[in-house]
Amino acid sequence: MTRSLPVEPLTREAFAPFGQVIDTDGAERFAINQGTATRFHRLAAVEAGDGGRAILSIFRATARPAPFAISLLERHPLASQAFVPLSDHDWLVVVAERPETAALRCFCAGGRQGVQYAPGVWHHPLLVLVPEQDFLVVDREGPGDSLGDNLEEVVLRTAARIDGHL
Amino acid sequence: MTRSLPVEPLTREAFAPFGQVIDTDGAERFAINQGTATRFHRLAAVEAGDGGRAILSIFRATARPAPFAISLLERHPLASQAFVPLSDHDWLVVVAERPETAALRCFCAGGRQGVQYAPGVWHHPLLVLVPEQDFLVVDREGPGDSLGDNLEEVVLRTAARIDGHL
Repeated sequence: MTRSLPVEPLTREAFAPFGQVIDTDGAERFAINQGTATRFHRLAAVEAGDGGRAILSIFRATARPAPFAISLLERHPLASQAFVPLSDHDWLVVVAERPETAALRCFCAGGRQGVQYAPGVWHHPLLVLVPEQDFLVVDREGPGDSLGDNLEEVVLRTAARIDGHL
Repeated sequence: MTRSLPVEPLTREAFAPFGQVIDTDGAERFAINQGTATRFHRLAAVEAGDGGRAILSIFRATARPAPFAISLLERHPLASQAFVPLSDHDWLVVVAERPETAALRCFCAGGRQGVQYAPGVWHHPLLVLVPEQDFLVVDREGPGDSLGDNLEEVVLRTAARIDGHL
């Protein structure tokens, strides 16, 4: 049995329980660089955890084979993790307040919208809607990094299918 | 009098005295997300300085009026600052090991190349070659932030003009 998961627009308000939306819309802004640029300030603050520090990586994601069901979630208990698309294509953000199928939420992010997951937020690995899309990723290195103590995974007993996508 | 500044290609080796190049070329990489994505790992490590932490902002840069001369440099002594373009257009990176016209270097970054300036590296504010270009910026907030103790500026006595651009 699979559940059906509606797709919601990605807004700061709707995403607040899970972290920050990284886009210019509604952000605090001020002029810099002799008036030639605008700074959309502090869209997210990185949480690197005890003894950790932020690192910059690029993730190159490829489309999942369709039809695709959501059956796995992961989280990074020690630190935040941010994803910012480097090309302007919509992508999907699946998160959950609890690692249960009934708690899943799916947001459609625009190609100029990134997100930062707060530490410990359950999320699905990258879901892109074009054959290939790159993301700048800001996460943590340090004691218990993304490949060790800072990664937990769960497999859901009931899979979910995203309405109208994948 | 103005000096003429040649434009060099942006490579990790050439940029090493100034910081890191953030691109996938030649980076350490490994498969993640059930084999559907590649992680180009740790292209730069953020240096947030004592008591600081990394924040994510977007800078929207506009083209300078032409002809444009390089006459001002700035640096952030406490922390690194990274710029990653969010649209695929070449842009210019001007840096200097000393705040002197004779020490200026100009690199042409591709639209899929970002840079991170190491703490204290003299650099020119954003120079874009299209009317408008957005960048994800990773820098610091904390005691003495980008607008206070973490910003120094110098005006060069002899301006420089970039060969074939601006």
